[in-house]
Amino acid sequence: MTQALALGIDIGGTNTAFGVVNRRGEIVTKGSMPTRGHETPHHYIAALQQALQPIIEQAGRDNFVGAGIGAPNGNFYSGDIVFAPNLPWEGVIPMAKMVSDALHMKAVLTNDANAAAVGEMTYGAAKGLKDFILVTLGTGLGSGFVANGELIYGHDGFAGELGHVIAVRNGRKCGCGRMGCLETYASATGIVRTAHLLLADRDDATILRGQGDEISARSIYIAAKAGDHFALELMEYTGRILGQTLADAVAITSPEAIIFFGGLANAGEMLLDPVRAHMEANLLNIYKNKVALIQSALPDADAAILGASALAW
Amino acid sequence: MTQALALGIDIGGTNTAFGVVNRRGEIVTKGSMPTRGHETPHHYIAALQQALQPIIEQAGRDNFVGAGIGAPNGNFYSGDIVFAPNLPWEGVIPMAKMVSDALHMKAVLTNDANAAAVGEMTYGAAKGLKDFILVTLGTGLGSGFVANGELIYGHDGFAGELGHVIAVRNGRKCGCGRMGCLETYASATGIVRTAHLLLADRDDATILRGQGDEISARSIYIAAKAGDHFALELMEYTGRILGQTLADAVAITSPEAIIFFGGLANAGEMLLDPVRAHMEANLLNIYKNKVALIQSALPDADAAILGASALAW
Repeated sequence: MTQALALGIDIGGTNTAFGVVNRRGEIVTKGSMPTRGHETPHHYIAALQQALQPIIEQAGRDNFVGAGIGAPNGNFYSGDIVFAPNLPWEGVIPMAKMVSDALHMKAVLTNDANAAAVGEMTYGAAKGLKDFILVTLGTGLGSGFVANGELIYGHDGFAGELGHVIAVRNGRKCGCGRMGCLETYASATGIVRTAHLLLADRDDATILRGQGDEISARSIYIAAKAGDHFALELMEYTGRILGQTLADAVAITSPEAIIFFGGLANAGEMLLDPVRAHMEANLLNIYKNKVALIQSALPDADAAILGASALAW
Repeated sequence: MTQALALGIDIGGTNTAFGVVNRRGEIVTKGSMPTRGHETPHHYIAALQQALQPIIEQAGRDNFVGAGIGAPNGNFYSGDIVFAPNLPWEGVIPMAKMVSDALHMKAVLTNDANAAAVGEMTYGAAKGLKDFILVTLGTGLGSGFVANGELIYGHDGFAGELGHVIAVRNGRKCGCGRMGCLETYASATGIVRTAHLLLADRDDATILRGQGDEISARSIYIAAKAGDHFALELMEYTGRILGQTLADAVAITSPEAIIFFGGLANAGEMLLDPVRAHMEANLLNIYKNKVALIQSALPDADAAILGASALAW
C-alpha cells in the first residue's frame, strides 16, 4: 500500500501549528499548541507527541510517509534547530531526530520561512514563479529566497535570514545579540515596540494609548483601518524600514514578486502600500515597477504546514 | 569542422579587455583598448571592430563559435546594456546585436561580474563551489551570486547588483542617482574618494598628500604596504563598510566563499584583513568563521575574458 499522508509541523515563536496533508495538498486535519511554556525541548516534544498521537492513530499510522517540520533557524542538512533567538530554548536542538523518535516516523526539517516558500510555490501565490522572496512577518521576520526555481539553502543550510540583515546601523537591540536587525522593526513584535516607543515619546491622542500591554499587530491594524493617525504612522514607519531593506534584497536576487505571510502581513495593503512606496523610492532604476508585492492568499498557518509537509514526500 | 575558438570581451568602466580562448580555457591572444573617449556606442564599436579584426582574421574567422561579452548592467536575456552608471553612454544599448553585426558572428552578453563568476567557477578559485559570491572591485563594484551551482540571473536578468545596496543611508552620491551605494565606498574609485575627503579634512603626514590627482587604488596600496598610517586607515575604513555590507549579503545566500577580483582587490590581505574582521564582527552567529574571503588567483582581466568567452560555447 502506498503511503498517502504527510504530517506538516510549523514551529513558530509563539504557536506550533500542525496538520495532516494528503497527496493533493489538502489539509485533512489540523491543530495547534503553544510553543512556549515548556521547560526543555524534551517537555515540548512530550506535549507535541500527546497532541499528535490521536491524530496519527485516527488517520492510521501506516498511511504516513513521514513528517516535515518548519522551524526558526531550522537546518535542512542537519535536521537541527541552531541558536534560534525567537524560541525559548538555547543552543543546538536535534529537532528532526527528536520528532522522529517520538512519532516513530521519518522526519525532515527546514527553516520555517523556507517551508512557507515551498508551500507558496506548490499551492499559493508563487505557483509558477521561478524567482521570488517569501517574507514571514510573525514573532520575527523570516524569509525564503527562490532563484532559478530552487530554494536557496546556501552552503550550510542557513540561507535566507533577511530578518537579521542590519536595517538600522546601531539600531534596536535584537534577540540575536546584535543591533538594528530588520526583524526588530518589521515583524508583529517590531511594530509593537515602535508603538510603545512612540507612545512614550509623544502625547498624540490615539485609540492605542489606552491599550497598554494589549497593543498587538492586530490592534494596530484595526486602529489604522479606523483612520487612527498614530496607527497609520506606525504602518508608514514600519513600511519605510521594510521597504528600504527590501530594495537592497531586490538588488541581490532580482525577484518577480515578494510574498508576505504571517501575523503582521494580515494588515494587507495598509502595510504593503507604504512598503511599496519606500521600496520603489529606494530601488535602482533597472528594478523599478517590476517587483510585485503580494499578500499570501493561503489562510493562517496553512502555507507553513503545507510547505513543511511537502518535505516529507 | 568544429569551431574551436571563442572570443571573450570584457567591457569595463575604464578599459575593454578581449581575448581569444580555446576549448581548454587557454587565452591564445589578448589585448585591450580604452572604453572611454568614444562619443557614441557606434564610435566605440567601430574602434572595437578595428582592434579585433586582425585578431579574428589571424585565428581564422571560421574557427570562432562566437563572442561572449561581459559588461556593467549587461542583461543576459535581452543582450542590452541598460542604464550603466559607469559607462560613458546613457540609456539602453543593444550591445550584443551591435557586436554581432560588426564582427559577423553570434554574440551573447551578460553582466561583467556574472561573467567573472563563471570564469572563477570554471577555471579559478571557485572551481567546485556551489554557493559563492564573486565581487569585482574596479571602477565600480560588481557581483555575481552563485547558489545551488547556478548563477542567479533573477527574474529579468539583472540580479547581483551588490554595488548598489545602500551601505550608508543618505551617504555619498552615486552615479546611479541615489545616495550611499556600496560602490561609492568600496571600489577603486571609492577608496580614492575616501582619500581625498580625509586629506581635505585632516593634516596628517602621509605619502599620499603630495600625489594630488595621481592618487589611485594602487598608490594607496603601495603606501599602505610601506606602513603609511593614513593609507592603512583608508584600507580599514573601506574594509569596514565592505565587511558590514557583506555580512548582510551572507545572511541572504549563505555562501561558502567570497572571491575578490579587480583593481582594488590587488591590495590582497591588506584590504581583506579589515574586510574579514568587520564582516565577522557583524555576522549572525550561525555564519561566523565559515565564509572564506579569497583573492582571485586569475591574473588581470583573465577571469572576465574567460567567463565572457564561456558564454559563447
